[in-house]
Amino acid sequence: MELLRLGAVGEERPYVRAADGTVHDLSSVTRDTGGEIDGAFLAADGIARTRAALESGSLPVADVEGLRVGAPIARPGAVVCIGQNYAAHAAESGAEPPKQPIVFFKHPNTVVGPYDEVLVPRGATKTDWEVELAVVIGKQARYVDSDAEALACVAGYAVSNDVSERAFQIEQSGGQWSKGKCCETFNPFGPALVPADEVGDPQDLDLKSWVNGEPRQASNTKDMIFTVAALIRDLSQYMVLSPGDIVNTGTPEGVALSGRFPYLAPGDTMELEIQGLGRQKQTLGKA
Amino acid sequence: MELLRLGAVGEERPYVRAADGTVHDLSSVTRDTGGEIDGAFLAADGIARTRAALESGSLPVADVEGLRVGAPIARPGAVVCIGQNYAAHAAESGAEPPKQPIVFFKHPNTVVGPYDEVLVPRGATKTDWEVELAVVIGKQARYVDSDAEALACVAGYAVSNDVSERAFQIEQSGGQWSKGKCCETFNPFGPALVPADEVGDPQDLDLKSWVNGEPRQASNTKDMIFTVAALIRDLSQYMVLSPGDIVNTGTPEGVALSGRFPYLAPGDTMELEIQGLGRQKQTLGKA
Repeated sequence: MELLRLGAVGEERPYVRAADGTVHDLSSVTRDTGGEIDGAFLAADGIARTRAALESGSLPVADVEGLRVGAPIARPGAVVCIGQNYAAHAAESGAEPPKQPIVFFKHPNTVVGPYDEVLVPRGATKTDWEVELAVVIGKQARYVDSDAEALACVAGYAVSNDVSERAFQIEQSGGQWSKGKCCETFNPFGPALVPADEVGDPQDLDLKSWVNGEPRQASNTKDMIFTVAALIRDLSQYMVLSPGDIVNTGTPEGVALSGRFPYLAPGDTMELEIQGLGRQKQTLGKA
Repeated sequence: MELLRLGAVGEERPYVRAADGTVHDLSSVTRDTGGEIDGAFLAADGIARTRAALESGSLPVADVEGLRVGAPIARPGAVVCIGQNYAAHAAESGAEPPKQPIVFFKHPNTVVGPYDEVLVPRGATKTDWEVELAVVIGKQARYVDSDAEALACVAGYAVSNDVSERAFQIEQSGGQWSKGKCCETFNPFGPALVPADEVGDPQDLDLKSWVNGEPRQASNTKDMIFTVAALIRDLSQYMVLSPGDIVNTGTPEGVALSGRFPYLAPGDTMELEIQGLGRQKQTLGKA
């Protein structure tokens, strides 16, 4: 099953897609926690309640034809990002593989739908793509010791495009990367939130990206330097991860920063796919 | 007038303190936007509506004796921080004054009340204080051109303690500072949100801090390298600032990182004050 939020920007409503492909209205399940697929819903065992409701047949089939696909999580409390978590990407960025996870943040208002337009910012010259496995936190993670405990904090996974402007990130930032990570529309997310227990091993997922139909990134999450479990353990020593938080777990090689490909321009298209989590497609516009 | 949120953790309710010192229940004004002093309230002209309600005499006086003081803004969408925005602090940190604002983020779940306990994180050796003028955004800031337009996006100001763990920030971070800025309880905020039009010139406010009663920082916001207006203009070129966002505008010299003072330990107290915005006091505990 997959959790979805469908509807116009700011008017998305919650749905679930069953294994047979039918889409069901989820609002009877989200109602108790305020109506959204968000941190409160996930913390209140929303995924298990969704599954039970779906299996009981109590969720009405919905006609969602033509509805826009929004990000499958509303109001993420934080978007925590991991830098250089694939050795080959660290190398193409001119850096040594990190000895500990490198952590920065995106503004949560960068999160948009998986097919929404992405805007090249004013003054931008180096807008870049980054396909990433995103973790959505379902249970508070605080000083987590074991991998099992870490993975128990994961509600599910989604595709994330950690769009970046390299001049803003590196040349105009005084060294702190967030300035090139937070531009409007810079985090297409989704199409779906897939429950963790339906994803299988998060360290064996192919992830790929294309620009204008040409292949760019093609890797597998087994090449992560720090696994999802290790990242959550590590992050939880430095902060509390709250239900509804998103962790973008880093991107593999094949981005424009490598010098092998041109940066993005208005009119270009990006496509991103992760095995079992679906595919995104965005067209670039101008801010 | 000052906006306040009073009550136990997670059960804070909205109040306003009038110029004569009386505290009034604000819930009749916050009700339309969900009940909180938050981004939705500020975006819906909440401060002007509060003032009108107070002047009309429609807000009941409240007995708030003994109630805990919470952070005066609920659910900030983002906590955007500016690094090294006072020349003398940049110097004591061993850095050149920045040519452009340096931007990093704190996790919004670090925001706590102004008198709440601050926890020294596990494994910490270099926990430090930072008194900062915090800006609370009331109106979306996107590609702002002028200082006047920038200041029109400010709902009000508050005292912020940008608590930092320097080993996490500098030695264990791979260079990205957020890792030392996001520990649990690391952003005492308040006691009050003071409307911008009652603060006067944000570039002429004394700000001070003390540890165990001994003076540490003593400066004035006129020594900022980038003014509040310049910061909002600059940030708005790199991100959209949304109502309810907090901007911590940087700290002046006099922190432990300078080598002139010991780092914090459990049992220590911090006090922080900004002219016209009130005073905080926290005791350090252990995570």
